[in-house]
Amino acid sequence: MMSPALHDLPQHDLPHHDGSVTYVPVQEPALGDVVPVLVRAPRAAGVQGIWLRSVRDGEPLVAPARVDRDDQHAVWWRADLLVSNPTTSYRFLVQQHDGSVGWLNGTGLHARDVTDASDFRVVADPTSPDWPADAVVYQVFPDRFARSQAYAGRETPDWAVRCDWDDPVVHQGPLVQRQWYGGDLPGIAEHLDHLTSLSADVLYLTPIWPAGSNHRYDAQTFDHVDPVLGGDEGLARLVDTAHGHGIRVIGDLTTNHVGVTHEWFQAAQRDATSDEASYFHFREHPSDYAMWLDVPSLPKLDHRSAALRQRFYAAPDSVVAQWLRPPHGLDGWRVDVANMTGRHADLDLAHEVARAVRSTMTDVEPDAWLLAEHGHDASGDLMGHGWDGTMAYAAFTRPVWTWLNTPGHGRTYLGIPIEVPTFTGQATAATMREFTASMPWRARERSVNLLGSHDTPRVRTVVGAAKQLVAAALLATSPGVPQLFAGDEIGLEALDGEHARTPFPWQRREAWDATTLSAYQRLLALRRSEVALRRGGLRWLSITPDALTFVRDHPDGPVVVHAARTPHAQVTVPLSALGTNRPDSVQTLYGEPIVSEDGQATFPSSGPAAHVYRVG
Amino acid sequence: MMSPALHDLPQHDLPHHDGSVTYVPVQEPALGDVVPVLVRAPRAAGVQGIWLRSVRDGEPLVAPARVDRDDQHAVWWRADLLVSNPTTSYRFLVQQHDGSVGWLNGTGLHARDVTDASDFRVVADPTSPDWPADAVVYQVFPDRFARSQAYAGRETPDWAVRCDWDDPVVHQGPLVQRQWYGGDLPGIAEHLDHLTSLSADVLYLTPIWPAGSNHRYDAQTFDHVDPVLGGDEGLARLVDTAHGHGIRVIGDLTTNHVGVTHEWFQAAQRDATSDEASYFHFREHPSDYAMWLDVPSLPKLDHRSAALRQRFYAAPDSVVAQWLRPPHGLDGWRVDVANMTGRHADLDLAHEVARAVRSTMTDVEPDAWLLAEHGHDASGDLMGHGWDGTMAYAAFTRPVWTWLNTPGHGRTYLGIPIEVPTFTGQATAATMREFTASMPWRARERSVNLLGSHDTPRVRTVVGAAKQLVAAALLATSPGVPQLFAGDEIGLEALDGEHARTPFPWQRREAWDATTLSAYQRLLALRRSEVALRRGGLRWLSITPDALTFVRDHPDGPVVVHAARTPHAQVTVPLSALGTNRPDSVQTLYGEPIVSEDGQATFPSSGPAAHVYRVG
Repeated sequence: MMSPALHDLPQHDLPHHDGSVTYVPVQEPALGDVVPVLVRAPRAAGVQGIWLRSVRDGEPLVAPARVDRDDQHAVWWRADLLVSNPTTSYRFLVQQHDGSVGWLNGTGLHARDVTDASDFRVVADPTSPDWPADAVVYQVFPDRFARSQAYAGRETPDWAVRCDWDDPVVHQGPLVQRQWYGGDLPGIAEHLDHLTSLSADVLYLTPIWPAGSNHRYDAQTFDHVDPVLGGDEGLARLVDTAHGHGIRVIGDLTTNHVGVTHEWFQAAQRDATSDEASYFHFREHPSDYAMWLDVPSLPKLDHRSAALRQRFYAAPDSVVAQWLRPPHGLDGWRVDVANMTGRHADLDLAHEVARAVRSTMTDVEPDAWLLAEHGHDASGDLMGHGWDGTMAYAAFTRPVWTWLNTPGHGRTYLGIPIEVPTFTGQATAATMREFTASMPWRARERSVNLLGSHDTPRVRTVVGAAKQLVAAALLATSPGVPQLFAGDEIGLEALDGEHARTPFPWQRREAWDATTLSAYQRLLALRRSEVALRRGGLRWLSITPDALTFVRDHPDGPVVVHAARTPHAQVTVPLSALGTNRPDSVQTLYGEPIVSEDGQATFPSSGPAAHVYRVG
Repeated sequence: MMSPALHDLPQHDLPHHDGSVTYVPVQEPALGDVVPVLVRAPRAAGVQGIWLRSVRDGEPLVAPARVDRDDQHAVWWRADLLVSNPTTSYRFLVQQHDGSVGWLNGTGLHARDVTDASDFRVVADPTSPDWPADAVVYQVFPDRFARSQAYAGRETPDWAVRCDWDDPVVHQGPLVQRQWYGGDLPGIAEHLDHLTSLSADVLYLTPIWPAGSNHRYDAQTFDHVDPVLGGDEGLARLVDTAHGHGIRVIGDLTTNHVGVTHEWFQAAQRDATSDEASYFHFREHPSDYAMWLDVPSLPKLDHRSAALRQRFYAAPDSVVAQWLRPPHGLDGWRVDVANMTGRHADLDLAHEVARAVRSTMTDVEPDAWLLAEHGHDASGDLMGHGWDGTMAYAAFTRPVWTWLNTPGHGRTYLGIPIEVPTFTGQATAATMREFTASMPWRARERSVNLLGSHDTPRVRTVVGAAKQLVAAALLATSPGVPQLFAGDEIGLEALDGEHARTPFPWQRREAWDATTLSAYQRLLALRRSEVALRRGGLRWLSITPDALTFVRDHPDGPVVVHAARTPHAQVTVPLSALGTNRPDSVQTLYGEPIVSEDGQATFPSSGPAAHVYRVG
């Protein structure tokens, strides 16, 4: 029996594995466990043998897979994986009937030898909450979401220039950090129904500490909430109210640095013999110290200091711990610049810090989520036993932007001094796969996907209104926790991160883009209702320049997504690739239906557009 | 000005960088240094801008490159790289005149975003000898190379079955480890001229300790050389004689495990309270302990033991140190199963061990070479500050075998239970690039390339006689230290590693393949005479299924290599890609000349064949 060579097979005929529950039924193994891992091999792939190759104590271990079952649409192969190490990497050798072979790893099938870089990975003995996989996050910049009646009575802070809610956001020059719109925590509490209407069940607040700016990343203390935002009591009430709405709340910490006016740094500068002086990298006390990217106002923390570790995160009364307890009861932390934390010249304590923070959280509140900001390649920092997940700028934001980009907006490319480039669907899928390949599946499910944040232009400005809906569909249907930046869902635009810190126009509902809002609501509600969209795998069916088509496989039945940036050539795949042979079992959840004929499914060729189907 | 899109450019028109001295003039920077890095951009690539993107303390740092010079054949761009960390990774963003962009990293140019996995890497403050880059290694299995007159007077060891030099090597069953041919160190000393005739200047000896087998990886002590091999004095004399011939000698240590009859394990089993008991992972003393791959005769060492570290490698009188000193004066160590050393379940001390061994060697004899056995993806273990290099089974042996393979020999694929597969030239180059991409250039130059060893079938058995010469040419002309396994050069064959431990047929010179020997001698002499072959970069000119063509760029002038596994379609590149515009400046060093016309160079299309040219 002859089959096309591995590299000539169409995407939907390729053997597939990912770390989701369909393919790795035991999602949380213990060290030393032997767990089954499965490969789906379409009949057209002509597979005659599969071997599992894992790495045990640094040495490859090869074991044969055997046929587990044939579901009419594909043959399922099963092998036994020894979870030999805290993070165990593995891939599969696939042999066709003609003897030709290829490696199946996280970036797909390769008719040659490959490194371990894109191996699948499983983590043993996790201490990491499972709930984020089902979550939808709504990000709020506290000064800009909503203000309560208390605002009227508040004095303008020293650093601030009081603005009316409708004043334009200044995004260049000294006023940027000083504009004070007066949003506060009680104001947020009044608008939780808006989150619920978007199926959002996590509220992520950028910093709420007393600080010298509206963004508050230059915290003065981690022991109190800024009174201007409503203070400690305001936070406790907001958390209570949110919990009443079924909404969790996560805070924002800087483990890499503090502001020069932070009480720790002030004490350190005052007294070279103080405990606090050990928290920082003084080359010469008090004025020559290591900083975040050479910015003097942001002194970098030295995690070699046992005193710092105790005070910040390694003790039951540490900053990290105290805010997770009643009466505050935060449900987790987003950690700013996690990628730089503990890294300085010849020091690299990043993973030690991550593990220590996670360990304390597990002691205090095991269900608390630890989310690491990481603007580029986070894979080396997500191997388990530390950060639960990351902000997938590299694995999601960039590929979605560059696929849907509408050139001419002049926005630079997230730290790279060129306008956002445009790449093909093939490039998009390849990039998504490369960045997620080595991530343990659980880290991927517990990472957030985002289309923008308070640090970026708004997605609509980059891709335009029509393609924003395609972006929203990818956000709602991809593996990883969708995170919305408040205002995206009503069609706001912004030229950069500072510009994106928009006061939410509650008072001008007529300016909201109802179509966009409705699309976000429908798409995120679908995610809420379809477990396959939250916890399914990711199997690519078709990858063309203008259309991306994939299946989220799940034991409760697959969901299929077809997204296009423009009208495009018809995409047709066998119905069997969708896991069915009955056209009437394909139900349209969003967008237009497929056309089915002779066992083939043809997707709509309109665009920009996105379509979602439940199978079975 | 329009140029083809990046991904449509022919290989020879692509911008290029590697870690060699042409592209990174400062090869041994210190932490904090700013060093220039260069990109060669052929005019046809239509490059309008290049940016350097490095990672500083975990965060990307982007800096523009500027045009450094135009050498008529290409434009050279130059950027300043901050060596911010002990290992600093970097890549380049390349923009064409039409605005399209791609990333240039160790695997080539990519018209999409890429992870850091294949970034270039530079190492600060190395403590690693430079000489191996110029070396050629000759591997000897001591029992099988040559026996001296002393043999006649030796008693057969307990474990051994005495064999005549011409007896066939048994490669299956209990006799494998017991056949004793009686080769010894004085015997080796008598044949050093053979090494010299092959330009070999390093003699690598597999273990020479007293043991219970002919391979001696089950050492009984590290304090003495087996008397059967000539003892301590035999080693001292061999090293002296070798040094007199300009030949260095390196030994072989097992840091992962010892044999059950090793004096350390014996002491450990006798007394649970002994220092030695801490050297091992006893689950239950004395009989339940961790082993190498569950082989009871090879108990695994526990590097958490301070006593073990001191005795083995972390003190001036340690095993590692003592043999590097006079009178023995070994010039380095090859470390067996380095990839598993210190790795056991939830422990991973591999890098700590590597650094400690290197540190002691640096104290005792800074010029000693530390070479790690690693059978698969070594890149994660070669980031600097530990092993100087590895045995490039994955980056060299496997790709060469699978390109030149002659199917039907039935040899399995180095631990993978299928016959050695055959891959295209494209797959070969891609695999070589992927495995070497992230390796700091100095680790690549200080790693050995090999076509086989005492652990594999002989290359001739896998690829056949004609293609062995192509393999030898790749061995002699690639970045990395050529290592020959004694006997390959006279055309010996072998079905597996045990079978390859062939007594060297000094007495049957008529059975030597004179053509093969002459080719090895000529090719390795070329490496000796051409600095570009030892220290040049690696720039691919053409990659086709059946022919591989590359340039070794070097400030003293490039050398070009064209290798083919079969007769093939003509490969033609612009002369300018060779760094010249004068056909008469291309001198044939090996093989047939190029044909030059209208500024184009056409390589010979015969095959199997290899050709080497000096330019300028």
